[in-house]
Amino acid sequence: MPEDARRHNRSLALQALFGSDPLSRADLARSTHLTPTTASDLVSGLLDDGLVEEVGRRPGRGAGKPATLLRIVPDGRHLVCLDLSDEEAVVGAVINLAGAVVTRRTLKRNGRAGDDAVDLVAELAESLAADTDRPLLGVGIGSPGLVDGHGVVVAAWSYQWARVPLAEILSARLDLPVHVVNDANAATLGEFTFGHTTAQNFVVVKLGQGVGAGLVIDGRLVSGERAAAGEIGHVVVDERGELCTCGNRGCVELAVAVPFVRQRIAAAGADEAARRRVLAGAGRRLGLALATVVSAIDSQEVVVSGPPDIVDERFLAAVLGTIRRRTIALIGEHVDVRASSLGTDDVLFGAASLVLSQELGIA
Amino acid sequence: MPEDARRHNRSLALQALFGSDPLSRADLARSTHLTPTTASDLVSGLLDDGLVEEVGRRPGRGAGKPATLLRIVPDGRHLVCLDLSDEEAVVGAVINLAGAVVTRRTLKRNGRAGDDAVDLVAELAESLAADTDRPLLGVGIGSPGLVDGHGVVVAAWSYQWARVPLAEILSARLDLPVHVVNDANAATLGEFTFGHTTAQNFVVVKLGQGVGAGLVIDGRLVSGERAAAGEIGHVVVDERGELCTCGNRGCVELAVAVPFVRQRIAAAGADEAARRRVLAGAGRRLGLALATVVSAIDSQEVVVSGPPDIVDERFLAAVLGTIRRRTIALIGEHVDVRASSLGTDDVLFGAASLVLSQELGIA
Repeated sequence: MPEDARRHNRSLALQALFGSDPLSRADLARSTHLTPTTASDLVSGLLDDGLVEEVGRRPGRGAGKPATLLRIVPDGRHLVCLDLSDEEAVVGAVINLAGAVVTRRTLKRNGRAGDDAVDLVAELAESLAADTDRPLLGVGIGSPGLVDGHGVVVAAWSYQWARVPLAEILSARLDLPVHVVNDANAATLGEFTFGHTTAQNFVVVKLGQGVGAGLVIDGRLVSGERAAAGEIGHVVVDERGELCTCGNRGCVELAVAVPFVRQRIAAAGADEAARRRVLAGAGRRLGLALATVVSAIDSQEVVVSGPPDIVDERFLAAVLGTIRRRTIALIGEHVDVRASSLGTDDVLFGAASLVLSQELGIA
Repeated sequence: MPEDARRHNRSLALQALFGSDPLSRADLARSTHLTPTTASDLVSGLLDDGLVEEVGRRPGRGAGKPATLLRIVPDGRHLVCLDLSDEEAVVGAVINLAGAVVTRRTLKRNGRAGDDAVDLVAELAESLAADTDRPLLGVGIGSPGLVDGHGVVVAAWSYQWARVPLAEILSARLDLPVHVVNDANAATLGEFTFGHTTAQNFVVVKLGQGVGAGLVIDGRLVSGERAAAGEIGHVVVDERGELCTCGNRGCVELAVAVPFVRQRIAAAGADEAARRRVLAGAGRRLGLALATVVSAIDSQEVVVSGPPDIVDERFLAAVLGTIRRRTIALIGEHVDVRASSLGTDDVLFGAASLVLSQELGIA
């Protein structure tokens, strides 16, 4: 069998085992459409690699020999996962193949930017790699800004990065495969692979220093023609709104990015009604942009990822109400708007999901 | 080999041959990741079925025997394709596997609706089926309105259809597989399979009695959670606009559906400047909705399908200008807005594409 066919089949087998109850070799052959012989050969290789283990036998049905059951070894590999979306600190964790956090580390940024920030990220990754004695599968990173398909951060304003080949630099320093994705897309991957959603069509909006979105359509994350899918931060939702740094007025980012909303909350002071109006207004503006997105892709769910002082019930209700008012009933009546089920760990889990898919073909 | 694996491999082989220069058995094995033996067995079956034929030999490179080349037999199967998007007539064609129109027929509607319109559609399909003596692969239909994944027209206002199982009814009458898709999605499939686009991420907007869109993302047509993807007709683009039948004000449909634009053109009379303002205004409103869609999916192209009296250079320029003003430069600067490369045949070719994908696995 050609080598790329073998790799493809290996991914099919791992995919079938991932997040599933233990399976027999025959189950695996059935669900992957491989012949029993091919499936059995693959399993031998996976056992040798320490990725899969036997976990007992299934009680026989009828006269046949009870089948040996297989599962992925939870600590067969560890993953180093980094979240760079916070303004104050770089955050990381070692995560295992079962999606459990093994260890966590955080390094304060103290304003570090440019090459100095690249060093900070490398230090965090090295510390985490030293925290585990298990074989490392790779490093996954969720970064703010535009990230291309080769792990180059094309532009990340908050780190003053422009065309920084982050994957290549870190891969050379750590001698490990490194994969980088935009933080909103990471949050989306995390929700899809490790979160509570069962939808195959949904949008994750990440409110941070800016506003980004990730789209899952028919079960796949959308990257777009220039890896810029989900860049809704500068869609105009108020033509008579404030002037944005991008040159337009009334961008989504001015309406719902964390620093701007917190400014308006601070201005409201102790006036609870004013605070609520701020959140409802921000939610309405976000809903205006999302109504069109939800209509275009017929999304079942909108997941909002952001700090709990902003993403509260009132905010979510305003987003939902606006989407309902501005879409056809068939779509609007069925859409659900909720906070991320992974809380603030969504980018870390997304980074883990990225490494799993790139290194093992598990989506 | 299990039967579904065989069907899957057969689709891989046909897909590789479709729209390609003739290939050898070895080429096929390489491009499908199948073993040479499996590929050779598949080819034997396809030759027996009259789907593939040998077309000579490739001049040998080096000492090897010259390889026999294979291609899909253009008239190995014929497809009956129907376009129901026109208000005045139902339009059909027989199309072959090479995408050539073999014959065309049109039946006037004369206001027929409900069951009577179903009969009209069946008559057209039967006439077309009788026009050819080649084996028929199936019937493909592009219908206005909402169509579910089982070929049920959930709602098509212009035919007064509500939950009409069009695929099932026609399949029983014609004794052929019948596949139905929304007309905007059909136009999108047509553009993708037979049109001039090379983009993997694009939007097709169909202006007809209403306004619908089809989205291709990473090379696949998006269906959405309830098969309602692309239903942007009732996205609000002008909160202070006219009241729509849906209960909202200022829907996209009021701005750019063909009957409404033609009314405004008629009101402009011989005043050429007024006519231009009408088209520029309609284009701007469509651009408002599309700016968000293009940002969300990072689309490379917007294809507008509609009558040439509306979709002219001025209209397209207004759409493009609005998208550019309302998206980030990275996306807006690279997006292209153009008319459909298949003209008014786009729905027919999309119906053909649907049958090819459903019956032969060719996407």
